[in-house]
Amino acid sequence: MWEARAASNTSAPTQFLATGKEKYAYRRFGEGPGLPLVFLQHFTGTLDNWDPAVTDPLATGREVILFESAGLGRSSGKVPETVAGMAAHALAFLDGLGLKTCDVLGFSLGGMVAQQMALDRPSIFRRMILVGTAPRGGELIMHLDKRSLAEPLADPNLKGYAVLQKIFFAPTDSSQAAGAAFIERLTKRNGDREPVSGPQVAQAQIAAFRDWEKFSGERFADLRGIRQPVLVVNGVHDEMIPVRNSYWLGENLPNAVLMTYPDSDTVPCFSSTTRSLVKPPRFSLPIFRMRLTESS
Amino acid sequence: MWEARAASNTSAPTQFLATGKEKYAYRRFGEGPGLPLVFLQHFTGTLDNWDPAVTDPLATGREVILFESAGLGRSSGKVPETVAGMAAHALAFLDGLGLKTCDVLGFSLGGMVAQQMALDRPSIFRRMILVGTAPRGGELIMHLDKRSLAEPLADPNLKGYAVLQKIFFAPTDSSQAAGAAFIERLTKRNGDREPVSGPQVAQAQIAAFRDWEKFSGERFADLRGIRQPVLVVNGVHDEMIPVRNSYWLGENLPNAVLMTYPDSDTVPCFSSTTRSLVKPPRFSLPIFRMRLTESS
Repeated sequence: MWEARAASNTSAPTQFLATGKEKYAYRRFGEGPGLPLVFLQHFTGTLDNWDPAVTDPLATGREVILFESAGLGRSSGKVPETVAGMAAHALAFLDGLGLKTCDVLGFSLGGMVAQQMALDRPSIFRRMILVGTAPRGGELIMHLDKRSLAEPLADPNLKGYAVLQKIFFAPTDSSQAAGAAFIERLTKRNGDREPVSGPQVAQAQIAAFRDWEKFSGERFADLRGIRQPVLVVNGVHDEMIPVRNSYWLGENLPNAVLMTYPDSDTVPCFSSTTRSLVKPPRFSLPIFRMRLTESS
Repeated sequence: MWEARAASNTSAPTQFLATGKEKYAYRRFGEGPGLPLVFLQHFTGTLDNWDPAVTDPLATGREVILFESAGLGRSSGKVPETVAGMAAHALAFLDGLGLKTCDVLGFSLGGMVAQQMALDRPSIFRRMILVGTAPRGGELIMHLDKRSLAEPLADPNLKGYAVLQKIFFAPTDSSQAAGAAFIERLTKRNGDREPVSGPQVAQAQIAAFRDWEKFSGERFADLRGIRQPVLVVNGVHDEMIPVRNSYWLGENLPNAVLMTYPDSDTVPCFSSTTRSLVKPPRFSLPIFRMRLTESS
């Protein structure tokens, strides 16, 4: 079973960094010789949505840095309506920290931001982990009007984290049990929490998803410009961003390994990883660790 | 770089097992507390086609058993024209050895045989690795008339292993270099080699591929009957058995993790694994090892 560690998103204080663009909230914990690993968050998620079972083990041997983009939580500014706008905020934040190169874990929307950053400034990332996300020109990205998502999102009996348990985890007993444990971990943090995102955050981010589905020229050709070693991860039953999008990443990124997981829904970073703590196959976290600690 | 080990397919003597069905050639090497890992071979391949860079590291902590099915190499009998017929031979062989349960690595045709065995006798496998293969009802399985395969297969300048280098590895410098190293490893074995397969072997195995593409009832429903933890592995540019077939395995097997590799062609067990020895991403062998050595 998972246990809280000394370096944890459960206890790390929220910090603030003023830059020429905005003031960004972030958390930073862990230590070691490895390059820092920056986490870029999913749709409407704040710093409080990072599962300590994912972040904390990765803070062994390196620092983990959780970034709150503009207009989220206690970061100032407005949420951009394009992924490129979000990438500019993340780059301004890393510049403000004085980080020239790091590793990145981009989750869903955060994975799109990571791809855009790698294209805009290739030197910013050594290695990338793209979880439950899609390439520009991908399809059916966060279509919240589809029935499997619209029903739980509109259900008045599902509030707050309970919605996440419903839509992030497959409707199997094992996956829902992993979902309940995930929610319990998220609620362990006492105080110093971020404000929950409102409808204007969702609206701007959905505009960014619609824009990300568009492409010009040869589809997926831009992926050839991302030369970093990339680990692409997804659950095969992803309802929010279908796994087909991860297949395209694996097929078109020149140096990507794809891993897909069974019995895990929209958010394999959560569901399959937490699942990996309780029953086999259990190599998601070791994989992440192996990949990040290899010499470059 | 790869170096030959004490327990190796380069030096292990070929052994023979007489059963009620046929007399089978096989090799058996390595030792340790793990369950034996049985290797099931690809189209027209004999015991001499197993890359020591793949087999030997897996013979640490357990025995590796390479099986020569009926009508191949020095095994007696005829090559069956169905996967089910081949599965019956493999089960007769394991029965003859007195093995009640083992792990399996099935490669291409061998992966189909492994699936059939798991359906016919679920207790025979604890864990399965399915490399560069397809489910029953898959598509474009070994269509040797397609141009990318027909040309090298008909090229009079390509003989023996040189054909394999051409069709097993992607047409990139890095992949072809890995291919040359692969061929060099295969030629290291001195004597006690198997006869090379003739056209009658190819003909029967191709008949089995055509039969394997057919299905009745709900497509891929039979995969739900394979409850074992399965690691599915493929290269994204597989010309012989397109990676789409591995996606179907990952989506329909109830407990499968899929890994795909870049810059690797039809035979990721060879190309991506050998590749993994020379440059990142390099976790194919560690993964295999991790998976197999986990407690069940």
